[in-house]
Amino acid sequence: MAGKKVLIVYAHQEPKSFNGSLLKIAVEELSKQGCSVTVSDLYSMQFEPRATRNDIVGHLHNSEAFNYGVETWEAYKRGGLSKDLVEEQKKVQEADLLIFQFPLFWFNMPAILKGWMDRVLVQGFAYDLSKVYDGGLLQDKLSLFSFTTGGSKEKYAIRGDIRYLLWPMQHGIMHFCGVKVLEPHICYAPENVSEEKRKEMLAAWSQRLKTLWKEEPTDCSPEWYFK
Amino acid sequence: MAGKKVLIVYAHQEPKSFNGSLLKIAVEELSKQGCSVTVSDLYSMQFEPRATRNDIVGHLHNSEAFNYGVETWEAYKRGGLSKDLVEEQKKVQEADLLIFQFPLFWFNMPAILKGWMDRVLVQGFAYDLSKVYDGGLLQDKLSLFSFTTGGSKEKYAIRGDIRYLLWPMQHGIMHFCGVKVLEPHICYAPENVSEEKRKEMLAAWSQRLKTLWKEEPTDCSPEWYFK
Repeated sequence: MAGKKVLIVYAHQEPKSFNGSLLKIAVEELSKQGCSVTVSDLYSMQFEPRATRNDIVGHLHNSEAFNYGVETWEAYKRGGLSKDLVEEQKKVQEADLLIFQFPLFWFNMPAILKGWMDRVLVQGFAYDLSKVYDGGLLQDKLSLFSFTTGGSKEKYAIRGDIRYLLWPMQHGIMHFCGVKVLEPHICYAPENVSEEKRKEMLAAWSQRLKTLWKEEPTDCSPEWYFK
Repeated sequence: MAGKKVLIVYAHQEPKSFNGSLLKIAVEELSKQGCSVTVSDLYSMQFEPRATRNDIVGHLHNSEAFNYGVETWEAYKRGGLSKDLVEEQKKVQEADLLIFQFPLFWFNMPAILKGWMDRVLVQGFAYDLSKVYDGGLLQDKLSLFSFTTGGSKEKYAIRGDIRYLLWPMQHGIMHFCGVKVLEPHICYAPENVSEEKRKEMLAAWSQRLKTLWKEEPTDCSPEWYFK
């Protein structure tokens, strides 16, 4: 889809890793389609995951007792967030699609990516008082969690499905901000399979990306997850 | 329970916060019981959440392609993990009870605490090839997730229960390492309730700690979570 803007938030230390290959494929395939692709390579950027007072430039709203949520909200309103956050927010604002590429660490995203969520998606920017879920501030955007696991598919399945593990990320973060969620793309245990199987997994990702823009978002409601 | 050792891993920036008060109460009450209490105050330690090559002292097992899981496992075996990790592992090793005290960020723990999980609980130390779940390496320890939320209880309930949100933390991390899990302690929306209600919440935590050692661990099986 020529003209579409994609932000890939990438959290792996090693370009030669399987995650690195998945990233490369996404950049190539989406660029070939005429999309404009931006990558936030968190480790190489040495992205700061810690939510601290340093995220606020200048004075605090209440310097007596530091409250990160209140301070970043106030700072956002007056244009006083730190430069690295403003840059990430700009990338998010411009994107039609957010792809998160990472290895699953402890049933969840690595801390560096969790830090991106904690620090970039502040109140005022991503959601507001009653502007959450379908009313969230980042509507008309799509998201896709693409990740690798250490264990086999069966290891993560509850009643045959990994969806329960996706709930906090897909519903609790993306849906909360109004972002629509495409089917996750999961490569199970690439370190424990044959080279041939790994190639198949890479080819499948490339293939999926060719028709990605035709996909319908998933139903991100509690009812779907916990039916 | 005199003589018991407790490690509190604490993730809040502000000592005057409600989380700070909960920490203070736990330290006071458990010390009063004769427990030996250690606190890892992650923000004040400027704890590093990023999983990088810096966690390995000296040579890498495979310097051609960095694999964090493999490298930290190998480094653990030869005593080559970075000093901050060795110190945290020592605290965990000595503890009978781990308490995690934090504000819920995006249906999960803040990145700085997720980074503690990612970096401290390495293979060889917390689990090993087939030593997971009830066979995990950190058996005979208890854990307790104590956290505050931004929203009301109803906001997190699915079929009337917050347990689905606890699944990745309690089952995916603690149970995976063989650590038993006590009932979580959740203070809902302390910022949005009256001063009187806040005092009640603090008193309830203090009260619970008085009989904590008599509590039975919860059933951390998928069957219990997703019945």
